[in-house]
Order: sequence, then C-alpha cells, then structure tokens
Amino acid sequence: MIVIGERLNGMFKDVGKAIVEGDPAVIRDLAQRQLDAGANVLDVNVGPTAEDAVGAMKWLVETIREVTEAPLAIDSTKFDVVRAGVERAGPTSMINSTPGDEARLDRYMPLAAEFGCDIIALTIDEKGIPRDANGRMEIAMRIVEKAMLNGVDLERIYIDPVIIPCNVPDAGHHPGEVLETIRQVKLISDPPPKTTLGLSNVSQGTSERHLINRTYLVMCLAAGLDSAIVDPLDTELMNAVTTAELLMNQSVYCDDFLRAHRR
Amino acid sequence: MIVIGERLNGMFKDVGKAIVEGDPAVIRDLAQRQLDAGANVLDVNVGPTAEDAVGAMKWLVETIREVTEAPLAIDSTKFDVVRAGVERAGPTSMINSTPGDEARLDRYMPLAAEFGCDIIALTIDEKGIPRDANGRMEIAMRIVEKAMLNGVDLERIYIDPVIIPCNVPDAGHHPGEVLETIRQVKLISDPPPKTTLGLSNVSQGTSERHLINRTYLVMCLAAGLDSAIVDPLDTELMNAVTTAELLMNQSVYCDDFLRAHRR
Repeated sequence: MIVIGERLNGMFKDVGKAIVEGDPAVIRDLAQRQLDAGANVLDVNVGPTAEDAVGAMKWLVETIREVTEAPLAIDSTKFDVVRAGVERAGPTSMINSTPGDEARLDRYMPLAAEFGCDIIALTIDEKGIPRDANGRMEIAMRIVEKAMLNGVDLERIYIDPVIIPCNVPDAGHHPGEVLETIRQVKLISDPPPKTTLGLSNVSQGTSERHLINRTYLVMCLAAGLDSAIVDPLDTELMNAVTTAELLMNQSVYCDDFLRAHRR
Repeated sequence: MIVIGERLNGMFKDVGKAIVEGDPAVIRDLAQRQLDAGANVLDVNVGPTAEDAVGAMKWLVETIREVTEAPLAIDSTKFDVVRAGVERAGPTSMINSTPGDEARLDRYMPLAAEFGCDIIALTIDEKGIPRDANGRMEIAMRIVEKAMLNGVDLERIYIDPVIIPCNVPDAGHHPGEVLETIRQVKLISDPPPKTTLGLSNVSQGTSERHLINRTYLVMCLAAGLDSAIVDPLDTELMNAVTTAELLMNQSVYCDDFLRAHRR
C-alpha cells in the first residue's frame, strides 16, 4: 500500500503552532518520523487557521525539502495554495485533491498535466456524496474522462470514494458501498486508475478511533485499495497494513516480517 | 458472524488433561467462558490422544449439556465419533466436518439429513487442497450437489475453503484464493450455502499468531464470510469482529458498541 502520512497538517495542534511560529524543527521531525514509520508520501496541509495560506504552504514545502525528497501530497481546497505547493514540491508531488464536478475537474486536471504529477480525485460533486457505489462510479467515470481529455495518465489518478463517519445515523451502508467502489474502479480500464482513501474520517467522533481505522483499512486492502491517507505513527495500524500485505501475497513471510517490511 | 469457539479441543493441554482425568469443571468453565465472550456455537473435539474417542466424545457432550443448550460443532475425522456426538448433542448440532470427496460426502450427507443438523464441508478431496479458487469451487459444487441429492438444505451447508499457513513456501497466494472462494460461494444459489473457516491454521508456526488471525479474519468478513472457528477468548480478535460487523452495517454504532454487541 502507498502510505500517505497525514500528520503534517495544521489542524494538528503541534503543526499549527509550528506554522504560526515558523519553527522548522517540529516540521522536519514529523517528516522524518513518518518516513521512518513507513510513509511513502507526506501529506502537507496548512490547516484552517493560516492567514497567508499560500505563504504557509511554500514555507512548509521548503522546510520539508530540507530533510527529504519524498513525494508530497499538496493538500488544500484552495487552487492557488495547491499550485504554490506543487510548484515547489517538484515532479514527484501529488495534488490532494479535486472534487469530481465538471468545473473543478476542468481546472485541476490541466494543473496535473502541467506539472506531470499525480492527483487525488474525490467521488463528490455539486450534489454531494453519492448514496451508493453506483453513484460513486458515475463520478469516477467523469474523473477518468476528464483525465483522458487532459492527457493525464490513468495511473496518475487516485480515486477516493469518500468515506463518511460510521456513527452518522442512517449512513451505515456507506463503508460497504465504498468497498464495492474500490472493487469496481479496478474494472474501469487496464491499467486501471488507482484508489486511495482519507481513512480517518470513518472514525470521526467515535469512541474507538484506532480500532475502527485499522479494521476498516484492512477491509479496504482486501478489496484492492492501493493507497490511504493515514497516521503512520499509529503502530498498530501499520502492523495491520504490513500483515494484510503479507496475506495479499505482496511480501514473503519471515518471523521478523513486521520490522523487515519497514524502512 | 457465527462464532464457533475452538477451545473445547483435547489438543489444548487443559482440555486434554480434563478428558483423561474426567474432570467436568474445566469443561463446563470453558463452555461458559466462550459463550460469555460471544461464541454462538461450541466446537467439541476429543483431541488426538483419547484412547476411547467415542466414549470421550459422549462424556464431553454430556458434560457441556449440563451448562448449556448452545449448538455444538462435533469435530472429529472419525465417522463413529461424529455420529456419537451428534446423537447426544441434539438437533442444534453441527457436523465438523466432511472432506469434499465423493466417498465421504456419500457417508456424511445422509448423517446430516438423518439428524437435521448443519454440516461443515471442506474443499479438499483425494487430490488434496486445490491451488486456486477455481479448484476450490469445483469441490464446492460437488458438495452442493451431494447436499441436494440427500435432501440437506443448502442453508445447512457451511463450506470451508481450507486455509493453509501463510509461512508455507510458495503458498502465499492461498489467502487471496480463499477470499475469492468466499465471494464465489455466495453466487452458487439463492439462498447460497454458508461459508466458514478454520481460521487459526493461517497463522500456524508464525511469530505473530494473534495479529495474523485477526487481520485475516477481517479480510474474510469483508469478502462475506458467515462464520469462523476461532478462539473467542482472544479479546482483540473479538473486538475486530465486532468492529467489522459494525462497518458491514450488521449493527448500529453506539459509543459502547464493543460491549453492547456481546452477550
């Protein structure tokens, strides 16, 4: 699984404070620790409170680039913040993310083409999050169409079927519909688009966040999920990922497999 | 998930000793503790060392029946031991198990019909364990055919796709093939046969038995597994099951869901 580390996000208190104070040590340390724990990509999000979001993104990316050339997922709902991040992160960066409506796809796909970078596209549009896998697949097909029109390779597309918290009333069918979407995306083309998931949302507001996160991630991996945005510092979650990969025949057993498959 | 508790097995030292010494307290206690932990069915196996296996099975079943009328899975490779157990356990019992070859199906299916009990049938025959899901499905179809010929309802059939340890060289594809078999069995008929799995075998001889067991069980539940033979006293495994059931929309979230969905 391609592990996108979620911790460099201004929403977290330590990161938010480091951005405000311009303290690079906290940022460098979190970058390195996530990579050591098995992250392949680092998500970078300035959070909701930064006054100069473009400036904060530039500073974050430059600070991280002092310690690693690992791919960065530039995470913002603002186009100019994403553009500023991608410009500085270089060709191994990732756009996180574009919604799946016409207007935004027409804006973000050319950006992905311009920088030759990967892009996460959410199965959500102006009508909101679809109720079932069919609705999600309709948006996924639109995403694929827009990628092709803009010359973005389908292997650069990461479709995120958007999971909602499992404690939302009358929404208990969503985790199953997301699993079904993950399976169906693999049938779109050969090679198919990739899939990813902003995992932590499934447990938002629940009493057992870590347990729900790792249980659902294992279910998604069994359905063929390629990637997820997770906390790589959650050791039990990473152990579950490593074990699921072993059971999916993506690695070979040795008694020390939990450690062997980490950096 | 229908939880079949595996602990009343003479292979375990405490149970083996209790059988030899005719000590009912250990047996009653293990029966009660497994039920309290969430077992729906209790597996009963006299183990490999009992001299009078038929006598030991009768004693075990009668001892368990002193504390519970819960369904018992009568577990033996010997036909006369299974017959003796099923006779005493009553109509809510389960035959565990018949292999999927013609000769044995012709012997065990009539026994299931005679007692009106459920039966676990393994996708293994005289040629051994198939390499892939297709081979397992061929045997599954034979099991279904023999059930129909003998008037055993398909809902009474539990097909076990037989998992082998994940540390066996060149066998890393088996966990994935078993997942695929679980999915395909659901397409045989409507209503389909049930599926079950002797889970612990997947981790036999490995360094991380509990982690591998619960990770693989969650993957199987995501594929639609109906039942498994597991240790219900493994709290983390049972928490994973409860969480997977929540995520499969088989229960409703409350902050106390881990406790609420236990007896």
